[in-house]
Amino acid sequence: MNRDQLFEQIKKKRSYLCVGLDTDLTKIPTHLLETADPVFEFNKQIIDATHDLCVAYKPNIAFYEALGSKGWESLQKTLDYIPKNIFTIADAKRGDIGNTSALYAKAFFEQMTFDSITVAPYMGEDSVKPFLQFKSKWVILLAHTSNPGSSDFQLLESTVSGMKLYEEVLVKSQQWGSPDQLMFVVGATQAEKMQSIRALAPDHFFLVPGIGVQGGDLEMLSRYGMNKQCGLLVNSARAIIYASPGKDFAIAARDEASKVQQQMDKLLEGI
Amino acid sequence: MNRDQLFEQIKKKRSYLCVGLDTDLTKIPTHLLETADPVFEFNKQIIDATHDLCVAYKPNIAFYEALGSKGWESLQKTLDYIPKNIFTIADAKRGDIGNTSALYAKAFFEQMTFDSITVAPYMGEDSVKPFLQFKSKWVILLAHTSNPGSSDFQLLESTVSGMKLYEEVLVKSQQWGSPDQLMFVVGATQAEKMQSIRALAPDHFFLVPGIGVQGGDLEMLSRYGMNKQCGLLVNSARAIIYASPGKDFAIAARDEASKVQQQMDKLLEGI
Repeated sequence: MNRDQLFEQIKKKRSYLCVGLDTDLTKIPTHLLETADPVFEFNKQIIDATHDLCVAYKPNIAFYEALGSKGWESLQKTLDYIPKNIFTIADAKRGDIGNTSALYAKAFFEQMTFDSITVAPYMGEDSVKPFLQFKSKWVILLAHTSNPGSSDFQLLESTVSGMKLYEEVLVKSQQWGSPDQLMFVVGATQAEKMQSIRALAPDHFFLVPGIGVQGGDLEMLSRYGMNKQCGLLVNSARAIIYASPGKDFAIAARDEASKVQQQMDKLLEGI
Repeated sequence: MNRDQLFEQIKKKRSYLCVGLDTDLTKIPTHLLETADPVFEFNKQIIDATHDLCVAYKPNIAFYEALGSKGWESLQKTLDYIPKNIFTIADAKRGDIGNTSALYAKAFFEQMTFDSITVAPYMGEDSVKPFLQFKSKWVILLAHTSNPGSSDFQLLESTVSGMKLYEEVLVKSQQWGSPDQLMFVVGATQAEKMQSIRALAPDHFFLVPGIGVQGGDLEMLSRYGMNKQCGLLVNSARAIIYASPGKDFAIAARDEASKVQQQMDKLLEGI
């Protein structure tokens, strides 16, 4: 999927919601455990219930990898089931030397057919570039994450540029890939920070982790993070997929996704 | 495997060689492609030919992941086949928020039973710590890698500490894990750099990528990188496993591994 197609979907659905498929056997409704493939069955029902309210799905690869080869089968079936007009993100946070990254790219873009993959920047250009060699496929590079440990290294300030590490990543990586193939993970929850990050990458899409996706946070990050093509994919996982622990989980997921979509509809005013 | 046990193996075998199992269907001898599981068949013969000359095996996970669920089966069979007195490294370069890293740890330490996993530090403490919760299991944290892109971010110098990013990683992460559970990837090919890195982490094992593993490089890195428990695992992949493209590949691999081991024997003098 290319950038224009993604933007078309956002306008059509009036949504920039990404649903995180962090599917965990210990958290899904117990009646599903009797099915042949509980992870896929759960995902299938979540997709059925939310596909008209979101523009992206993001399976967190660790959840599938933890189940061994059976987990990879559930992942493949999930990917096959997602409608083709929805953007797919392999949240894998890969990154290795060139020939190894090329193999990861092959795994996620060819073996499976994800639209995008999250990539860690620590090893630099040759670890990222192999993922950028695929037409209409995307790298979503970690810039500023929202976890507690993000301050350990990402805020380190350079003696040369005066920029912080995450700012260096934002600026330098734009030499490697255009806004048509490169997005950034931006977990800023403060208005000022989101504003300054948007200034450093005006045209790129940001994948925003869904902390407090409803209410003030969504309004703030949208106000300071949006660009003329929206430029945001806001992820929500647990708040949607685990909205109810019972047999009504898919209906509850739809209700939650719907609330977010309605808020997004308003925030998209003028787009 | 704990640190004393690893050191025992090094003394017994007079080797700190790690053989990288970067097994690639396009590079293995063609006669193996007729077998039911060519990747495992290749690894099995490599292990048979080299297990008395090395102390560690390091499958590069990308090579297996690129083959889909069949690749994971070959990986599991390979892991099961490696003798228990040999240290196993999942070269996976994972790293994510806490609950996700915990799942990766479960995948590699419980689902499979690797002794260690390589981890990327970009997301900080909570992305690394879940891997440190397993007894006698190890994190091998990327500090200074040896690929061209390593200079993009790893050399960024902090305005606060005056240290470079890779030095910050070396120092800060020592608060998270002891030398009994934490190693570092150190790709230094200059004597001075290896010396200064060893000064920052005197007791930790370093996993050293095997660039020019024979000859001067091995001597240099051993001279400046070794500590009283050796403290080094030096990886060699292609130079050993692809020493011959023909039916004699295992014999050729043994010859190459043997040359390295003999050099290591001399460099271990006094240990």
